[in-house]
Amino acid sequence: MDRTIGVLGGGQLGRMLQEAANRLNVNLITLDNGPDTPSKQINARSSHVNGSFTDPKAIRNLAEKCDILTIEIEHVDTDVLEDLSTGTETRDDWRLIRSTKVEVQPSWRTIRVIQDKYDQKEHLIKHGIPTPRSVPLSNHSIGDMKHLGEDIGYPFMLKSRTGAYDGRGNYAVKNISYIQAALDTLRDRPLYAEAWAPFELELAVMVVKVEDDAAADWQQATMAFPVAETIHEESICKLVYAPARNVSASTQREAQVLARRAVAGFWGKGVFGVEMFLLSNGELLINEIAPRPHNSGHYTIEACLLSQYDVHLRALLGLPIPEESLQFINRDTYSIMLNILGGAQSDSHLQVAQQALSIVGASIHLYGKGEARPGRKMGHITILASSMHEAQTRLESLINLVDQTQAAREQGLSDRIQASANSHKPALSEATLAASPIVAVTMGSDSDRTVLSPGIGLLRELKIPFSVTITSAHRTPERMFQFAKVSASQGIRVIIAAAGGAAHLPGMVAANTWLPVIGVPVKGSSLDGMDSLLSIVQMPKGCPVATVSINNSVNAAQLAARILATSDVTVRKRLEEHLANQTASVLKKAERMSEEGFDAYDLDQ
Amino acid sequence: MDRTIGVLGGGQLGRMLQEAANRLNVNLITLDNGPDTPSKQINARSSHVNGSFTDPKAIRNLAEKCDILTIEIEHVDTDVLEDLSTGTETRDDWRLIRSTKVEVQPSWRTIRVIQDKYDQKEHLIKHGIPTPRSVPLSNHSIGDMKHLGEDIGYPFMLKSRTGAYDGRGNYAVKNISYIQAALDTLRDRPLYAEAWAPFELELAVMVVKVEDDAAADWQQATMAFPVAETIHEESICKLVYAPARNVSASTQREAQVLARRAVAGFWGKGVFGVEMFLLSNGELLINEIAPRPHNSGHYTIEACLLSQYDVHLRALLGLPIPEESLQFINRDTYSIMLNILGGAQSDSHLQVAQQALSIVGASIHLYGKGEARPGRKMGHITILASSMHEAQTRLESLINLVDQTQAAREQGLSDRIQASANSHKPALSEATLAASPIVAVTMGSDSDRTVLSPGIGLLRELKIPFSVTITSAHRTPERMFQFAKVSASQGIRVIIAAAGGAAHLPGMVAANTWLPVIGVPVKGSSLDGMDSLLSIVQMPKGCPVATVSINNSVNAAQLAARILATSDVTVRKRLEEHLANQTASVLKKAERMSEEGFDAYDLDQ
Repeated sequence: MDRTIGVLGGGQLGRMLQEAANRLNVNLITLDNGPDTPSKQINARSSHVNGSFTDPKAIRNLAEKCDILTIEIEHVDTDVLEDLSTGTETRDDWRLIRSTKVEVQPSWRTIRVIQDKYDQKEHLIKHGIPTPRSVPLSNHSIGDMKHLGEDIGYPFMLKSRTGAYDGRGNYAVKNISYIQAALDTLRDRPLYAEAWAPFELELAVMVVKVEDDAAADWQQATMAFPVAETIHEESICKLVYAPARNVSASTQREAQVLARRAVAGFWGKGVFGVEMFLLSNGELLINEIAPRPHNSGHYTIEACLLSQYDVHLRALLGLPIPEESLQFINRDTYSIMLNILGGAQSDSHLQVAQQALSIVGASIHLYGKGEARPGRKMGHITILASSMHEAQTRLESLINLVDQTQAAREQGLSDRIQASANSHKPALSEATLAASPIVAVTMGSDSDRTVLSPGIGLLRELKIPFSVTITSAHRTPERMFQFAKVSASQGIRVIIAAAGGAAHLPGMVAANTWLPVIGVPVKGSSLDGMDSLLSIVQMPKGCPVATVSINNSVNAAQLAARILATSDVTVRKRLEEHLANQTASVLKKAERMSEEGFDAYDLDQ
Repeated sequence: MDRTIGVLGGGQLGRMLQEAANRLNVNLITLDNGPDTPSKQINARSSHVNGSFTDPKAIRNLAEKCDILTIEIEHVDTDVLEDLSTGTETRDDWRLIRSTKVEVQPSWRTIRVIQDKYDQKEHLIKHGIPTPRSVPLSNHSIGDMKHLGEDIGYPFMLKSRTGAYDGRGNYAVKNISYIQAALDTLRDRPLYAEAWAPFELELAVMVVKVEDDAAADWQQATMAFPVAETIHEESICKLVYAPARNVSASTQREAQVLARRAVAGFWGKGVFGVEMFLLSNGELLINEIAPRPHNSGHYTIEACLLSQYDVHLRALLGLPIPEESLQFINRDTYSIMLNILGGAQSDSHLQVAQQALSIVGASIHLYGKGEARPGRKMGHITILASSMHEAQTRLESLINLVDQTQAAREQGLSDRIQASANSHKPALSEATLAASPIVAVTMGSDSDRTVLSPGIGLLRELKIPFSVTITSAHRTPERMFQFAKVSASQGIRVIIAAAGGAAHLPGMVAANTWLPVIGVPVKGSSLDGMDSLLSIVQMPKGCPVATVSINNSVNAAQLAARILATSDVTVRKRLEEHLANQTASVLKKAERMSEEGFDAYDLDQ
């Protein structure tokens, strides 16, 4: 831990890296303009370098003091990084400069390729990584653009190859009539066109690379954090949900593998932020890659056992990173990260922070930036909870405030073309805020619906998110197997299965999952339900079904609530309230019977 | 958040307070000797004060720059704090000094009372807070000590009233023959004797006080973090378990109430560390109180939604503190904090940190202290896990290393009387490491034992901690009610109840708890178990029992595991392995039958 790391850039990413370094007593030295940048503020031990991370002299200055150089922003001078990492001799005016040889992580080659978004896309395609088709623009003429539109299809994105940040430098060309405005806006930059990705969701995976070579075995060379879902507004990240909502475990695994394969193709060590699109057909496409800690990984500070900053440091220094420590703290960890952006007033962002002080489970990070320009990232808030539903509930008041701040900001920004140019993102709708089901209800036949109805009512009353479907053990055996096998990985925690007669459904479901399965015997036309009861309850050793009384779906629902309550405080509170009401209701009846007398007592009242 | 806070002391507690302040962009200024104390290292924005926190001039210097003063160590000059908080005029040599008026939190009165341990004890007794009986020593003579021994009884503790820290200044007087050595060791200090508390465990509760007045309503004025269990060695805190192990929920609640009542009696705002003894008769006695963040509260950084440092800052600044945020992150949060002490070599502590890098769930905090003197607190490690058992497993390798370091240190210290003087603490035994039960198994009659035995076997195989008892619904109704009512608060998450005949036990237990109850129908002498089955399964609406097949305790145990697995990854892994083995075992039998043929197949093999 005694090697000194130089960081190009001293913004919020550098600051959070510095926090991690402070806890390990690792020496960081920051290069950025001014003595008081976010990361310099919290490290009084080092003599930092004052200057730009694009200025070769300043970078050489930093290198003199360090063993390893890394970046917190990719728009740096990579020529000098190349010199420094090889120790090349160069000439500055008339003087001969022999560069100190220092390790650059990730490699300057990686930073250089990623800096140019078109080169980045080409690199990915060369490595067999799916990404939207891209075509460079050689000539910024309307004619060229029209050809391009015919080739790549409308709508498409016109993007600046370099220097783009937080959506600045992107323009959505919806049809031929947008070409002139797109060119007017981005005329001075090197450009390329990118095919439109009709995505359902944007996902992001933080990956850490621990080996120097590119194209090494991705399984050896990389590890991935959980898959997060990102919500952008005006091309600026607004919210990050981790874990991603309503994304199956298999898609999440695919996303992690894709992100790791993509990162494995680059050179050098450290964390990478991988942003991707999930299309409606389930396909994943890489959007872009950042060779550094990333906004979509802030949630790891509170929600994971190690943060993206911890593992970046460890990767640079060659220290151990237990793969399990990249996971969530535990099974019940759900997080939402909300960026705090500068608003219309200079203190708009502080109002958001102020309000967050009153929210249970909210961790507040202010970056110590001076001036709060509209849209500038001033801080973020991470909300932790035991379920995504709880996290969303806690977030609600903040979201309202942020949306008001946002509206005020947009008012002020209406004359700025750039910010609103890219509307390439879905709106945050009520639907996407709906919680994922944690109870799956299934029945052998639609005739069991009436029996299940009161139980469904109780799940609703207790606000337990559930799914409901039909899976007949005998008529759709494959479907039933599939249902049982994928439930756990989809976030389901309890299954309720109702069936009658030779009622095999609950037992067969239990045979195909480790989840607790509750069986509801449905009374059929003969034997008064005894056939269903015995078919469900008399399971052989090794495959239990939690059986409730005949036709009693309410008890099945309440039992599911009891099970969830063992690890979900919100459900437990609602359950306890429900049980208390149940008691109160019988006591009231007893009181009424004592008042009215046994004979006058009216059952229907 | 724009008021400046001055902190007397710049050690590790100040450093962790500074971390919290950095995230909220709150201005802290530190007073301590040297420009590079742990807390100054991570705040480059403020012009800190160089000097001692016992030097009135330095304290006045600090006060000039601040709106609020607070402490991270209580051995400060309280006279000057008194002046500063009232704005009194004083004379220094010949000059008249008019003190700036600044807020001092907690109040100088609180710090002054707590500084003198005997005064602290008297204060507690005056406020009706139970604490070991204490007697001041007016005369440091052997005669006085003998009188005292007769009065207070042997063994007793001879303690320095002031300046004591990490056990320095304590001497255990086991019998009359220890008196001379005790006086020799502590001769130069003001002393008092404290009655021996025959404790089972040491507990600690961090409390935050948010009102200025003393003796205010403790429920209004204070909030408490969870109850932690502290393990001391040589009077230095070694380990903190949070939550405390094997302490009932009611005792934990009592400890929190006692801690809050004790803190409510002091003046001013901020966090307080309350250390207490739990005696074998269940009684709680306050040991001592620290008017500042405390070693026993480090675990809150990772394990709780807000840390002790977060709430200290918020209390000082009058910012909101949601009471729920003082709780663990979620129900599955278990933590162990291990102090990293300086060892025999100057880098012994770094070996511990180095090894912790490989431990899943370990967060490492190094304090940036220069020289690692033996026994000096150089850092700490907090291990998070989903169960205390898992946390203990993760900790094991570290504990071994620490114990080796410790042994090497003691070797070097054997000539230092002070450190080993107080052996007033129980050893860390295997027994105290046992996990608390999470499944409670009960039966209506001891004749059900045979039926339950295979289920108990499976719980053992899956390493699920359980308790087992007899509670007859009809013969011990009160006991059964009590069992059901307290289970949840004792950390039980699932109940298994077995009964036969008119089998009321499972249903009656379910009627008295919100926990999921699994019923095992036991086959009696008549009706082939149908009586038991129907008595258990046919519960009325509103009170479910998860019924398994007749006599099938294995299924009950496996169902309990499935329920626990919904929120405990360790249990889930073991369950999945068990299910896979079960499948493999049947497949093996099928293979054998295909090889040996149906007739030759030997069932017993």
